[in-house]
Amino acid sequence: MDIQILYHQLLNGDRNALAKAITLVESNKPEDKIESKLLMSFIQQSSQTSFRIGVTGTPGAGKSTFINALGMNFIRQGYKVAVLSIDPGSSISKGSILGDKTRMEDLAKQKEVFIRPTAATDYLGGVHSSTQKLISLCEAAGYQRIIIESVGVGQSEHHISLLSDMSLLILAPAGGDDLQGIKRGVMEWADLILINKADGELKAKAKLAAGYIYSILELLPKKSDWNVKVLSCSSVTQEGLREVYDEVDQFYKWISKKPIDELRQAQAAQRWQELWPSTCAQYLKQDPDIQYYSKKLADQLKNGEISEFTADDCMIRFIFAREIKQ
Amino acid sequence: MDIQILYHQLLNGDRNALAKAITLVESNKPEDKIESKLLMSFIQQSSQTSFRIGVTGTPGAGKSTFINALGMNFIRQGYKVAVLSIDPGSSISKGSILGDKTRMEDLAKQKEVFIRPTAATDYLGGVHSSTQKLISLCEAAGYQRIIIESVGVGQSEHHISLLSDMSLLILAPAGGDDLQGIKRGVMEWADLILINKADGELKAKAKLAAGYIYSILELLPKKSDWNVKVLSCSSVTQEGLREVYDEVDQFYKWISKKPIDELRQAQAAQRWQELWPSTCAQYLKQDPDIQYYSKKLADQLKNGEISEFTADDCMIRFIFAREIKQ
Repeated sequence: MDIQILYHQLLNGDRNALAKAITLVESNKPEDKIESKLLMSFIQQSSQTSFRIGVTGTPGAGKSTFINALGMNFIRQGYKVAVLSIDPGSSISKGSILGDKTRMEDLAKQKEVFIRPTAATDYLGGVHSSTQKLISLCEAAGYQRIIIESVGVGQSEHHISLLSDMSLLILAPAGGDDLQGIKRGVMEWADLILINKADGELKAKAKLAAGYIYSILELLPKKSDWNVKVLSCSSVTQEGLREVYDEVDQFYKWISKKPIDELRQAQAAQRWQELWPSTCAQYLKQDPDIQYYSKKLADQLKNGEISEFTADDCMIRFIFAREIKQ
Repeated sequence: MDIQILYHQLLNGDRNALAKAITLVESNKPEDKIESKLLMSFIQQSSQTSFRIGVTGTPGAGKSTFINALGMNFIRQGYKVAVLSIDPGSSISKGSILGDKTRMEDLAKQKEVFIRPTAATDYLGGVHSSTQKLISLCEAAGYQRIIIESVGVGQSEHHISLLSDMSLLILAPAGGDDLQGIKRGVMEWADLILINKADGELKAKAKLAAGYIYSILELLPKKSDWNVKVLSCSSVTQEGLREVYDEVDQFYKWISKKPIDELRQAQAAQRWQELWPSTCAQYLKQDPDIQYYSKKLADQLKNGEISEFTADDCMIRFIFAREIKQ
């Protein structure tokens, strides 16, 4: 693959080139990693910027339907929209039976839209460590609104907040519990909280939940001088959505006045600090000598000759008692 | 702490000793790790065995309420029950606002029950790597039924299946989508699938979902000679629960005829193969020289002097170009 040609096709907004570039960057093969590095070094020279919106929430909260609505609004405003859906998926098989595309039908039909469901097969850190690269690629290809979607479990909200300019949390009152999806740390990163599915019987319940969450917000220290709102809406009836779009636009105006490069560099530093151990772990996993030794230890475990704790000790000793070839 | 005394208290079923032991084993402090190793070496000598049931499902599926019912049934059968709830929680703050204990009220009142909500602060691997140790501790303390609960996202089902003798998947028809929570790989590890909340208006919907899932199951290769059933029930009305309890008992009878030590050793080998990279990563994180160097690199990132990719390269070079002190 000629990386320079791919890069120029990308800059021209070529969708096939973008898809190829993403596949390359996500690949674990050593030869792809070399080409990926080259491509990323070109990308860093391009000066395109985008507005990155992270959307998270528990399964069933209606994220995909909401993203469809928000994305269509961006299209109406004249922007190109990319949606990166990070679904940790199964380690056994990639992806989910219901591809996110089915609920982003309107969006999927637009030619100014690029949707990429990404199965994060390595759930280390909660969000695939190549997501930042995907964002840069979409940016280089001219996508000015990049929506990053992830399931709101574990550390994914925290990591999404380190990748986005604006972080949205979506909650649904019908998910078995009014407070389903709320975790103690959730207020610390959300820039906007939506109570979705506020239609029909659930409308009153949604307003109650919104009020409750708002009162919690009032008690917490502020992340910045941005006022975090709690809005209820229904992606299905469209009620309340206009207010949400306006709030997103307001946030964009607010953050455009900030030194965005500095903010993004601080995010990058924090993200890197959290991810470097798993980057090293990945490096170790690919070393052939280490792979061979790990299989030997696994066999000994299987035969009951050693315990898992002994296997851990042996592996650490093996790795660090020898010189690793670069 | 006198580890030998703690060990003997544990063998006597002392709940305080069990709680202390769990705290010790989950601790990241170097001095605790040494004592933890000693304790685990004693534990491996004890010959108690337990029946381990992994329960997983999306948030809102009603896992906690179901576990309460199943646990109470085990109590009626005369067993001591431990419940280990693995909630990945927030990386910023531990745990969730709604502690799982509130929905396991009946169970929490029994003296033959031990419930432990565990915030898996390191979500590497989807399930905290110390869970196996916690299971061994509960076993040593005489708990014959150990229920491990986790949220069904990412790789957690897969990992729960590597820790349990029997794996249960709980789905709820009301969670926004009939198929909410089903991922392509889900059939590959579940020994029993429950459609929960099959009450009132949702009863018909539940039966429909059960039939649909059952037809998928028919098409897939079998994991073993155990017939995986799909049952609908309501933890609230109790309808269908008797059949679920009987199915769990049937599974126990079936698996008791198998060479369970061999099965568990194979699980341990597979689990270890998946977790050793993150164990090494943890080891790296705690090295003071590496910590210092990582802060330097993070500062350079923050000032925009280097990119994340450069930081990765520098860190890998730093770690493996030097001798690590054991």
